[in-house]
Amino acid sequence: MKKMIGAIAVGSMAFAAVAQDITSERTLTLKLANELVTAAVASCTASGYNVVATVVDRSGYVKAMQRADNARPHAIEIAERKAHTSAMLGYPTAQLNENIVKGVTPAALLNTPNFTSLLGGVPIKAGTEVIGGFGVSGAPGGHLDLACIEAALKKVEDRLK
Amino acid sequence: MKKMIGAIAVGSMAFAAVAQDITSERTLTLKLANELVTAAVASCTASGYNVVATVVDRSGYVKAMQRADNARPHAIEIAERKAHTSAMLGYPTAQLNENIVKGVTPAALLNTPNFTSLLGGVPIKAGTEVIGGFGVSGAPGGHLDLACIEAALKKVEDRLK
Amino acid sequence: MKKMIGAIAVGSMAFAAVAQDITSERTLTLKLANELVTAAVASCTASGYNVVATVVDRSGYVKAMQRADNARPHAIEIAERKAHTSAMLGYPTAQLNENIVKGVTPAALLNTPNFTSLLGGVPIKAGTEVIGGFGVSGAPGGHLDLACIEAALKKVEDRLK
Amino acid sequence: MKKMIGAIAVGSMAFAAVAQDITSERTLTLKLANELVTAAVASCTASGYNVVATVVDRSGYVKAMQRADNARPHAIEIAERKAHTSAMLGYPTAQLNENIVKGVTPAALLNTPNFTSLLGGVPIKAGTEVIGGFGVSGAPGGHLDLACIEAALKKVEDRLK
Amino acid sequence: MKKMIGAIAVGSMAFAAVAQDITSERTLTLKLANELVTAAVASCTASGYNVVATVVDRSGYVKAMQRADNARPHAIEIAERKAHTSAMLGYPTAQLNENIVKGVTPAALLNTPNFTSLLGGVPIKAGTEVIGGFGVSGAPGGHLDLACIEAALKKVEDRLK
Amino acid sequence: MKKMIGAIAVGSMAFAAVAQDITSERTLTLKLANELVTAAVASCTASGYNVVATVVDRSGYVKAMQRADNARPHAIEIAERKAHTSAMLGYPTAQLNENIVKGVTPAALLNTPNFTSLLGGVPIKAGTEVIGGFGVSGAPGGHLDLACIEAALKKVEDRLK
Amino acid sequence: MKKMIGAIAVGSMAFAAVAQDITSERTLTLKLANELVTAAVASCTASGYNVVATVVDRSGYVKAMQRADNARPHAIEIAERKAHTSAMLGYPTAQLNENIVKGVTPAALLNTPNFTSLLGGVPIKAGTEVIGGFGVSGAPGGHLDLACIEAALKKVEDRLK
Amino acid sequence: MKKMIGAIAVGSMAFAAVAQDITSERTLTLKLANELVTAAVASCTASGYNVVATVVDRSGYVKAMQRADNARPHAIEIAERKAHTSAMLGYPTAQLNENIVKGVTPAALLNTPNFTSLLGGVPIKAGTEVIGGFGVSGAPGGHLDLACIEAALKKVEDRLK
Repeated sequence: MKKMIGAIAVGSMAFAAVAQDITSERTLTLKLANELVTAAVASCTASGYNVVATVVDRSGYVKAMQRADNARPHAIEIAERKAHTSAMLGYPTAQLNENIVKGVTPAALLNTPNFTSLLGGVPIKAGTEVIGGFGVSGAPGGHLDLACIEAALKKVEDRLK
Repeated sequence: MKKMIGAIAVGSMAFAAVAQDITSERTLTLKLANELVTAAVASCTASGYNVVATVVDRSGYVKAMQRADNARPHAIEIAERKAHTSAMLGYPTAQLNENIVKGVTPAALLNTPNFTSLLGGVPIKAGTEVIGGFGVSGAPGGHLDLACIEAALKKVEDRLK
Repeated sequence: MKKMIGAIAVGSMAFAAVAQDITSERTLTLKLANELVTAAVASCTASGYNVVATVVDRSGYVKAMQRADNARPHAIEIAERKAHTSAMLGYPTAQLNENIVKGVTPAALLNTPNFTSLLGGVPIKAGTEVIGGFGVSGAPGGHLDLACIEAALKKVEDRLK
Repeated sequence: MKKMIGAIAVGSMAFAAVAQDITSERTLTLKLANELVTAAVASCTASGYNVVATVVDRSGYVKAMQRADNARPHAIEIAERKAHTSAMLGYPTAQLNENIVKGVTPAALLNTPNFTSLLGGVPIKAGTEVIGGFGVSGAPGGHLDLACIEAALKKVEDRLK
Repeated sequence: MKKMIGAIAVGSMAFAAVAQDITSERTLTLKLANELVTAAVASCTASGYNVVATVVDRSGYVKAMQRADNARPHAIEIAERKAHTSAMLGYPTAQLNENIVKGVTPAALLNTPNFTSLLGGVPIKAGTEVIGGFGVSGAPGGHLDLACIEAALKKVEDRLK
Repeated sequence: MKKMIGAIAVGSMAFAAVAQDITSERTLTLKLANELVTAAVASCTASGYNVVATVVDRSGYVKAMQRADNARPHAIEIAERKAHTSAMLGYPTAQLNENIVKGVTPAALLNTPNFTSLLGGVPIKAGTEVIGGFGVSGAPGGHLDLACIEAALKKVEDRLK
Repeated sequence: MKKMIGAIAVGSMAFAAVAQDITSERTLTLKLANELVTAAVASCTASGYNVVATVVDRSGYVKAMQRADNARPHAIEIAERKAHTSAMLGYPTAQLNENIVKGVTPAALLNTPNFTSLLGGVPIKAGTEVIGGFGVSGAPGGHLDLACIEAALKKVEDRLK
Repeated sequence: MKKMIGAIAVGSMAFAAVAQDITSERTLTLKLANELVTAAVASCTASGYNVVATVVDRSGYVKAMQRADNARPHAIEIAERKAHTSAMLGYPTAQLNENIVKGVTPAALLNTPNFTSLLGGVPIKAGTEVIGGFGVSGAPGGHLDLACIEAALKKVEDRLK
């Protein structure tokens, strides 16, 4: 994949100088975030689980969040942590959990603010680039939270290749 | 207005006994919350403002939240505070600000966790009962945030009488 | 304004629309909370333990709390966490502890604000619905804290079926 | 009432030596705390206000707390702050507020953890000695919170002279 | 995968769809940040002031920071707040201070995490777009901190038009 | 040693009535606290260790603290936690650590604010009654911290029987 | 008094090279800190005030602290803030308060962690160099806290010229 | 290298008296800190890793920090913790991790504010004296972070003997 900066560089010298001072980062839009949290809540509700679904941007800040009726409030914090952790690390919280259990990663990583190793968080990627994070919490088991994320991501996967 | 508990009380003696131990509280649904934050973001976007819109339930916990593209992340915290404060106090943050300026309410109230007196937060009511809170942040002025809330509430006012 | 419950029972089109915007949640009363914390403190005191007993509502906010004379202050925080965790998860902290020990639940869940896996916290249910949480702390062992909770709940169990 | 230390001083030399290493502090009991919060909640409820009433011990730690049905959760924090501030300073929060307004006390004092100048907090004294603090929050105005405190204290004043 | 910028410039249907899901944000580079904090510290040192200089990116996260020898550690926090506030609001902290003094902006805005109205913070802009924030703290007066920022920005202003 | 409350009970009926509302708690004096932290720092310094020594009262609040020259600042927090934990639990942090290692006590107890299981904290008792806590931190090993505590306590043990 | 760096500079080239990488900072010793807090508590006790006295080092970390019997625990936090603020700013908290009242310094400076403008904090200087901070809290008025500080400093002033 | 205090001791009696009240501590300069973080970022960038590099002074306060383009913001916190922990303990975080895994050090030590056992933090020493701490975070593995630290330290090792 070519660098976006390439397009910008096709400019004057002055422009090129600016290009060294400024970079450009891709991040997901509210449109995509809304679509994902809506689909995840719907998927979980269809399975009988009342959940919180949260999408954060590339920097880990919340972009959209929905809490189903009867989803307990502690899930707000957990869903955000799952999304944040995934956006920061670039891989699912399930893998972080596995790494910690296997001793590959020290559990001390979990002391990082807004981090968790609970299943149910995945990065959102455009190709290989991380552009956000996605977390769901509230189902009776992280694998069930994860299933709702996967159902939601399936709907947009063609557009994120 | 009659008490809802009245409906429940039409039961056996055993049921009535339970009624003394348990109460029932009305709160807004995710459906309503989504409708409101979507409308508020759309209204502000139409005016050229990139904002965060947040709706909290009766207990002050976030129910739905959306952050427009280019809305800076500090607005996440502020929009939630506006919504939370309004749900707790039962009147707009604009009134709280006025009370503090006039010396009717000590500014010390602002030390309460998750409270703010910045314009742009209103309670959501069903009749006279507070069932949630609504906050918007990010426009260049609290009165502009407030205008987007009012536009959103207008769409549902008939259903909340 | 007529009651929502009426709408559910009878239900015109207009009413049904309102019912989609607002929901109703059952939670315990101060009357029940006071009865429970009083009984738990009395039970523990009778056994020679100075404890803190705390009852939270469905949303996890404290409803009533009592601290026996000579109960050390750290038990305030722990009793609330036990009650809060139970109300959020819907099962006793003893089960959470067992799940973590067995590896069924990652210990990372304990990083959730106000959570603990210490024995001595149980949900308060009306039938199968969680309407609050109950925690006791201060006895020399979580199973002893739990015994005081069970003694207190026994007094009201007929009314919560 | 004489100071307890007087009773201790009437001892042997060995006892006197201990007295130099150890002191004794009077603080209120759970019995008194329960009586006060129960009376304050009842008084406010009778006036139509749903409040939180909190009593802290001499060290500022909560001894008993009750939250009336429909009292919003933010009042939990505020009632504790009122009680805590009063126990620490030894005078009502109303006086602190007046001192700050008059410029006698810098507002910076309000940055102290768990402090507030909102009306509705008073110290609990045995004679002239502070043995606890009492706070109420939730009525529409601090003077109304204060009225419930005064009603509650009136019932026990003869026993605290 | 082709570059998004290409899509914007040329734009097939498929590409346009991606463009709706992903956006691109400009932010400053470490190269620019280092240049700025180095120049600010040098400028202040030349004037005899030991300061902290901090540059944050568009999202408010620290990009580069330097603390001169003998600069007291409290300035670390303050310099970051100045930079963060400026990046979030898009105007200097001096203007925020003026707005608060004039009553145009409620002081409650200062309760936002990582915010301050102390002089010595300015946004970093590329044209009219905010791409970061710049804060200096430690000189005996905010206007002196600000002078070091201005000296540093002067060196790069041609490249940020 | 007899309980002080015995001395109080030898009173008039009026006194007894007061006794039901008010209790008396023994706690250590500044004189004792100073003696202990001075001795602990001296003992550790003699062994070549630069430490922090902290004594808290019965309620867990710091009574006296000293930090030796060259003792790193992180030891301030740790020494207080050791003292606080011991005062709250009534047994040494070494025992808490052993209980956690053996699985008798869940590690979740360590999430309690101001708690630690690091060796080098012991309760201070008058007979069997806990009147404070004592913590030392900074030596290269908790057992070395503990040795300084024991050396200090030895000097006063006759007076605390 | 000459600067210490002068003494270092009289070295070999190798030494000078090191001197560019490493600097040396003067800070007060535990010996001095103990002397000061002991004297301040004694002075206040003699005047009938039960206070907390705290001395911090050049970096703002607590070096020694004593809390008189019957000094309420909130004074622990306040005394440390007074000492910390003075060590950071290099002038008394009384001057900070005056600056804020006069509008010379924005009140926003008080949001800095561990800062206060309450009277009763002064820097400790060796000549003109700040080597620590000194705070007292608990007397009924900051000017009374300050008097105890001044009494303590008087005893050592000849040694700090 | 001789201790600086030696230079001071060669003084008058008056000077010696001061020496008892004041001590001198060596800490690294901004010059050295900048050199180290610049080299570490360059080394990691050369290996294809976008990292944060942070150097703290002897007291654990940040002296210089750089975040490479595309380094995710959570690494800011982690790099500082690695540097802080190393400066406080005087040995690498890798050794702390090993001690915890082996059971030599209780994991409870990780609850200390700003501590971590993640690989990639080392103390900076002048001879045997700790004068700062160095942390890197962001590479896919702590050993890779550590390699960049070592590359940076290699450049200055001759000057820190």
